[in-house]
Amino acid sequence: MKPTIYFDNISGTPLHPQVKEEMVNYIQNHYGNPTSQHRIGDAAMETLENARAQVAALINAKPKEIVFTSGGTESVNHAIKGVALAMADKGKHIITSNIEHQSVLRSLRMLQRFGYHVTSLPVDKYGIVDPEDVKKAITDETILVSIMHANNEIGTIEPLAEIGRITREKGIIFHTDAVASAGVIPVDVDALGVDLLSMAANQFYGPSGVGALYIRPKTRIIPLLDGGVQENNMRGGTHNMIGIVGMGKAAELARHEMARRIEYLLTLKKALTDRINTMDDMVINGHPTNNLPNLLSVSVKYVEGESMVLMLDEEGVCVLTRSACATGSLRASHVLIAIGLDYATAQGTLIFSLSIMNTVDEIDHAFEVLSKSVEFLRNMSPLYRQKSK
Amino acid sequence: MKPTIYFDNISGTPLHPQVKEEMVNYIQNHYGNPTSQHRIGDAAMETLENARAQVAALINAKPKEIVFTSGGTESVNHAIKGVALAMADKGKHIITSNIEHQSVLRSLRMLQRFGYHVTSLPVDKYGIVDPEDVKKAITDETILVSIMHANNEIGTIEPLAEIGRITREKGIIFHTDAVASAGVIPVDVDALGVDLLSMAANQFYGPSGVGALYIRPKTRIIPLLDGGVQENNMRGGTHNMIGIVGMGKAAELARHEMARRIEYLLTLKKALTDRINTMDDMVINGHPTNNLPNLLSVSVKYVEGESMVLMLDEEGVCVLTRSACATGSLRASHVLIAIGLDYATAQGTLIFSLSIMNTVDEIDHAFEVLSKSVEFLRNMSPLYRQKSK
Repeated sequence: MKPTIYFDNISGTPLHPQVKEEMVNYIQNHYGNPTSQHRIGDAAMETLENARAQVAALINAKPKEIVFTSGGTESVNHAIKGVALAMADKGKHIITSNIEHQSVLRSLRMLQRFGYHVTSLPVDKYGIVDPEDVKKAITDETILVSIMHANNEIGTIEPLAEIGRITREKGIIFHTDAVASAGVIPVDVDALGVDLLSMAANQFYGPSGVGALYIRPKTRIIPLLDGGVQENNMRGGTHNMIGIVGMGKAAELARHEMARRIEYLLTLKKALTDRINTMDDMVINGHPTNNLPNLLSVSVKYVEGESMVLMLDEEGVCVLTRSACATGSLRASHVLIAIGLDYATAQGTLIFSLSIMNTVDEIDHAFEVLSKSVEFLRNMSPLYRQKSK
Repeated sequence: MKPTIYFDNISGTPLHPQVKEEMVNYIQNHYGNPTSQHRIGDAAMETLENARAQVAALINAKPKEIVFTSGGTESVNHAIKGVALAMADKGKHIITSNIEHQSVLRSLRMLQRFGYHVTSLPVDKYGIVDPEDVKKAITDETILVSIMHANNEIGTIEPLAEIGRITREKGIIFHTDAVASAGVIPVDVDALGVDLLSMAANQFYGPSGVGALYIRPKTRIIPLLDGGVQENNMRGGTHNMIGIVGMGKAAELARHEMARRIEYLLTLKKALTDRINTMDDMVINGHPTNNLPNLLSVSVKYVEGESMVLMLDEEGVCVLTRSACATGSLRASHVLIAIGLDYATAQGTLIFSLSIMNTVDEIDHAFEVLSKSVEFLRNMSPLYRQKSK
C-alpha cells in the first residue's frame, strides 16, 4: 500500500507526540476518580484541575469557567439546549446562521419540535454573517445567539467581536461553536464577547471524544447530563481522565506554539493554493483572508467529490468531501449552498485540512495525484467534454 | 507514604493490563475518524465495529443495538430523556425506584420540571423492588420503567426478569441502569427483558468516560446528543476511539474471565465479611445472597463515615462513603434511608468495592486498619462511651 498523506485533519488530527506521551504515562501509572475522598482521588483531582487550567489558558478563561465534555458535539448540545431550557420562561427565539455545524443545526431542529423558533441568518459569498443582520433579528423573545467562530468546511472566520458587542448591549446570551478554531488560531472569550464557547481537543492534536464548554459566570444554563456533582454540578459523569489529560497537554502546546504553527500552516496552504490555481475550472471557497490557516476548500468543476476522494485514497491521499459529520448523507453541503454555489459545483468540493505534521513535499505529491485524478475524471464527464470542444 | 490498598473500585477500576496494552497501542499507532471515507477512516471504522461486537457479546446483544456513549451517566440520560421526549404524545408517567443512581434521579427531576410525573417505588430492607409494585404503578400514561440492575451502594440485585415480564406484557419501555453489574456478573438483555440498558467500561477494568447504551430495535427514543450521523444517527459526536478500544477489550476479557473473576471476588468478599462480623455494632447492608460479588456495604455504628475514610486513607486504604457521585453533598445516602437505616447509621457507612487485582493479604491489612480506626473513633464518641458503660 502506498504511504498515507493525511489532509483530513478537520476530521480529527493525529496526536502530538507529547500528547501521546502524557496519555500513555497516565494509562500506565494512574487511575482513580477525582471525586473520591482519598489519596487516589486527590491525585486524580490534581491532574484534572491541571488540565482544566491548561484549557482555560488557551482561550483566556478562568479554570472554573471550563466544563469538560465528550467533545464538540456535546458542548454545542449542552450550550444550546441548556440555555433554551433554562431561559424558556423568558422566550423561545434563537438566532443562528445558515452555515453552522450539524450539531448546532440538529440541536435547534430538536428544539423546534418543542415550540422554539429559530431565525437562521444568510451569509455572503464568503460565508460571512452580517452583524447588522443579527441586530435586526433580535426580538423580545430572543434568548440565544449561536454563530460559529470559523466554518469547518470553508474556513471563513466570522466577525464575532462585533456580534458580541450587539448581544452584550441587548443582554442576550451568545454561544459560539469554536470547534474548528480553538487551538488553531487565537481565541479569547473576552475579546470575542461570547458567553459560551464550544471546543474539541481533536482539532489541535489532542484526542477525539473530549472537549470543553466555556461558560461565562452567571450565564443561565442547565446541565445536559444530569448525574453526580462533577464539573461544579454542570455535567454529571465520571471523567474521561485519559482524554482530559491529553486535551490539557494539547491545549498547553497549542498556546505556546500557536504563532509558529500558524506561520507553518500558512506556508503549506499557500503552496497548495498556488498549485491549485494553475488548474482550470477550480473554485476556492471561503473568505480569502479571514480564513483558517489549515483549511482549503476547493470546488473542482465537472467532477464529483466522492469519486475524487476514492481515487485520491487509492494513491494514499486522504481528503474530505463535505463535512466530516455529513458523510453518510447524500445531500450537497448546506454551507456551500449558503455561499451561493450551484448543486453540481458543491458536489465537486474537496476539503484539504492540514496539520503541522504535513510537509510541502506532501503537498507536491498530493497535488500531482489530484491533477491526474481530476484530468481522468473530467475526461469521463460528458459536460466537461462538451465544454472543452 | 504507605502502599495503597484500593477498595474503591465502584468509583472506577484500574485498567486491566491487556486493556492498557490495547489503548497504548492505539495511541501509538492509530488515529482517524471512523466516518471518514478513506483508508484512515476505514481502519478506524473496523476498530470501532470490532469494539462494538465485543461489547454486544458481553450482554447478549447484537452489535447494531449498541450505542457508544461517554459513560454510564450519558447512557442513563439518553435512555430516560430520549424515551420521555419521544413518547410525550403517549403519556408523561415514569416509574422508578427509591434507590436509583443520581443520574436516574436527576434526569427524572429535570423531566418533572417539564410536566412529567414520576412514581418512585419503595424497596424492602434489602433494597429489593417488588415487581408487583411495578405492576400496580402502571397507568395508561406510563411510558417508561427505569429500575437499576444492581445497586451501586449496597450491591443488591433487583428481580429484573420478573419486572421485564410485566413491562413486556403491558408494552411499556423498560430501562435498566446496569452500570454496577454489566461486566461484573452475567447480564443478558433478553433474559432480563429490558429494552434499554446503560453500562460503563470503568466497572470492569476499562477506562472511565466511555460507556454504552443498549437499545432494543423499535424502541421509541430520540438522541440526546444531536449532530453527525454517527452511531446509526443515535448519537452525534466524533468517537472517543481510545476509550472505545479499551472498553471493547475490557468487555471481551470480562466475558471470558467472568466465572473465574466472580469466584475470586466472592473469596475476597467472604474474607472481608467474616472479619467484619467479628466486630461489634457493625451492620452489613444489602441482600445477603442476591448481591454483587465485589461490593460490601458496612454501617459502623457510632462513627462517622467521612472520618473513617480519612483515617483509612492515612494508612493507604481507599474506601468510599456514600455513592461515588454523591460526595460533595453532605446528605445521608438516599439508598440507605430507603432500606430503613436511621440517619446516624447511614452516615457511618463504608462501601468496600473489590477488584480482581486485590488480595486476601490486602483484606487482612485493611481490616486491621479498619478495626483500629473504628476503635479510636468510637472511643471519642460520647454516644458509644455512654452505651459501653
